[in-house]
Amino acid sequence: LAVTRLTRVLQLGALTAMLVWVLGYLGGLSLSPRPTAPDGSANDTSQLFNWHPLLITVAFPVLMAEAVLAYKSPLVPMSDRPHAKLYHLVLHTLALVCTVLGVVAAFKSHTLKKPTPMADLYSSHSYLGLATLSLLGFQYLLAAYSYLFPKLTLARRRALGPLHSYLGKAILVAGLATMAVGIQEKQTFVQAFAKPASLYEPRMWLPGLIQLLLLATGLAVLYHHA
Amino acid sequence: LAVTRLTRVLQLGALTAMLVWVLGYLGGLSLSPRPTAPDGSANDTSQLFNWHPLLITVAFPVLMAEAVLAYKSPLVPMSDRPHAKLYHLVLHTLALVCTVLGVVAAFKSHTLKKPTPMADLYSSHSYLGLATLSLLGFQYLLAAYSYLFPKLTLARRRALGPLHSYLGKAILVAGLATMAVGIQEKQTFVQAFAKPASLYEPRMWLPGLIQLLLLATGLAVLYHHA
Ligand code: HEM
Ligand code: HEM
Ligand code: HEM
Ligand code: HEM
Ligand SMILES: O=C1O[C@H]([C@@H](O)CO)C(O)=C1O
Repeated sequence: LAVTRLTRVLQLGALTAMLVWVLGYLGGLSLSPRPTAPDGSANDTSQLFNWHPLLITVAFPVLMAEAVLAYKSPLVPMSDRPHAKLYHLVLHTLALVCTVLGVVAAFKSHTLKKPTPMADLYSSHSYLGLATLSLLGFQYLLAAYSYLFPKLTLARRRALGPLHSYLGKAILVAGLATMAVGIQEKQTFVQAFAKPASLYEPRMWLPGLIQLLLLATGLAVLYHHA
Repeated sequence: LAVTRLTRVLQLGALTAMLVWVLGYLGGLSLSPRPTAPDGSANDTSQLFNWHPLLITVAFPVLMAEAVLAYKSPLVPMSDRPHAKLYHLVLHTLALVCTVLGVVAAFKSHTLKKPTPMADLYSSHSYLGLATLSLLGFQYLLAAYSYLFPKLTLARRRALGPLHSYLGKAILVAGLATMAVGIQEKQTFVQAFAKPASLYEPRMWLPGLIQLLLLATGLAVLYHHA
C-alpha cells in the first residue's frame, strides 16, 4: 500500500529530524551531568535531558505507531494472528520502556542540576505528559490482564476489543500531541534563554519541522484505521 | 447518554477555564492596541492578542466539536437528516469564521506592535497552526463542492463519506493539539518574561488545566465515533 510506505518514510523522517535537533543543535547526549566548575559544584544537565525527547521519539512515532499497525500492515510480515499479537505486545512493551526511561531522564536532569536542582512539574507540558502516561499505564495493565493471562472469557475479550482499540489510538495521538507541546516548550526556552541571532535559523525551525512530521505520521497511521 | 452529557461539561469547562485565564491573568480583551506612551509611540498589543486563544477556543472545542456530533448527539434535537446537515454546516461555518478571526488577531498583535513590529511565523506552534488551517480550508472547500452544490453524483458523495469523516475528526484533533502547543508557548513566555514569583501560582497552572480539559474533550467527542 502506498500509504503504508509513506507512513514508514514519515516515521523515519521524524526520528531523523529529532536526532539532528538533539545531536546537532541541543548539545548531544550523555548519561550523566557534565561538570562546569572544576570542583563539581556546578553542572550542565542538558545532555542528560536530551534523552527525554529522543527516547520518546523512539517510543511514540516509531515503536507505538508500528504496534498500532501490527494487525494491519506490519513492517515484518506476520504468518498468523498469534504472531501479530506477539509482535504487538513486544512493540508496546519496548515503547513503554523507552517512554518511562525518557521521563526518568527529564526528572533526573532537573534533580541532578547543580548548584540548585530545577523545579518539577511546573509546565502544562508535564501535566499533559502525566495524563498521557496514566492512560498508557491503564491501557497496558488492562490489556495484559484481559488478553495475556486469559482471565476473561472469550465473550468479554471480544467486548473489550473496541474499547482497547479506541483507547490505543487515542493514546498514540495524545503522545504525539504531548510531544508537540514539549517541543514548543524547548523551542521557547531556546528563544528566551539562548537568544539566537535570528528567529529563522535551523535550531529555531527544526522543531517546527519535527511537529509537522509528527502530525503527518499520526494522520498516516490512523488512515489505516479510518 | 452519559458520555454526551460529560462532553458538554468538558466543552463548557474548557471555555470557562480559557475565559478565566484570558480575563483574569493575561490582561483581558481589547479590539485595538493600548498606547503605553503619551505620544502613541509605544503600545501593548497583548489584549488584542488575547482574542486569538479565546476565539479559537470557541471555534474548536465548542463549535467544531458540536459540528462533529451533529449527526450523532446534537445539543438541539434534529427532526431529520437535512436539518442535521444544515446544523453541521452552520456550526462548521461559524467555527471557520472564529478561527480565521482568531488567527488575524494573532498577526495583528504582531504587526501593530510599537515601537517595533514583532516577527511572524517563527514558532513551531505557528507552523503547526498553518498546517491545521490548510487541512481545514481544504476540507471545507471539498465538502462545500461535494455536498452543497450537488455537483457530484450520489455514488461519488457516498464514496467520499469515509474520507470526509476521517479528515474531519483528524482536523478537530489537530486543532486541539495546536491549541495545546500554543498554550504551552504562552505559558513559557509568562514564565520567561513576566517571571512569576512562584512556578505554581494560578497563572502558571491554569494553562495545564486547560490542556487537560482539551484532552478530555477530544477523548469524549471521539468516543461517539469509536
Ligand atoms: C509522550 C511524550 C512525552 C511525555 C509523556 C513527557 C513528559 C514529561 C514530564 C512528565 C516532564 C516533567 C519532568 C519534571 O517535572 O521534572 C517533562 C519535562 C520536559 N519535557 Fe517532556 N514529555 C514528552 C515528550 C517531550 C518531547 C518530545 C520534548 C521535546 C523537547 C519534551 C520536552 C520537555 C521539556 C523541555 C521538559 C522540561 C521542562 C518541564 O518540566 O516542563 N517532552 N516531560
Ligand atoms: C499487554 C499489552 C497488550 C496486549 C496483550 C494487546 C493485545 C491486543 C489484541 C489482542 C488486540 C486485538 C483486539 C481485537 O481485535 O479484538 C489489540 C488491538 C489493538 N491494540 Fe493492543 N494490546 C496491548 C497493549 C496495547 C497498547 C499499550 C496500545 C496503545 C497504547 C494498544 C493499541 C491497540 C490498537 C490500536 C489495536 C487495534 C488494532 C487494529 O484493529 O488493527 N494495545 N491489542
Ligand atoms: C487551532 C488553533 C490555533 C491555530 C491554528 C493557531 C495559529 C497561530 C498562528 C498562525 C500564529 C502566528 C501568528 C504570527 O506569526 O504573527 C499563532 C501565534 C500564536 N499563538 Fe496560536 N493558534 C492556535 C491556538 C492557539 C492557542 C489556544 C493559544 C494559547 C494561548 C495560542 C498561542 C499563540 C501565541 C502565544 C502566538 C504568538 C507567538 C507565535 O507567533 O508563535 N495559539 N497562532
Ligand atoms: C461545507 C461544509 C460541510 C458540509 C456541507 C459537510 C457535510 C457533511 C455530510 C453530508 C456528512 C455526512 C457524510 C456521510 O455520512 O456520508 C458529514 C459528516 C461529517 N463531517 Fe462534514 N461537512 C462540511 C464540513 C466539515 C468540516 C469542516 C469538518 C471538520 C473539520 C467536517 C467533519 C465531519 C465529520 C467528522 C463527519 C462524520 C459525522 C458522523 O459520522 O457522525 N465536516 N459532513
Ligand atoms: O532542557 C531544559 O530546559 C529547561 C531549562 O533548563 C531552561 O533554562 C529545563 O527545565 C530543561 O530541562
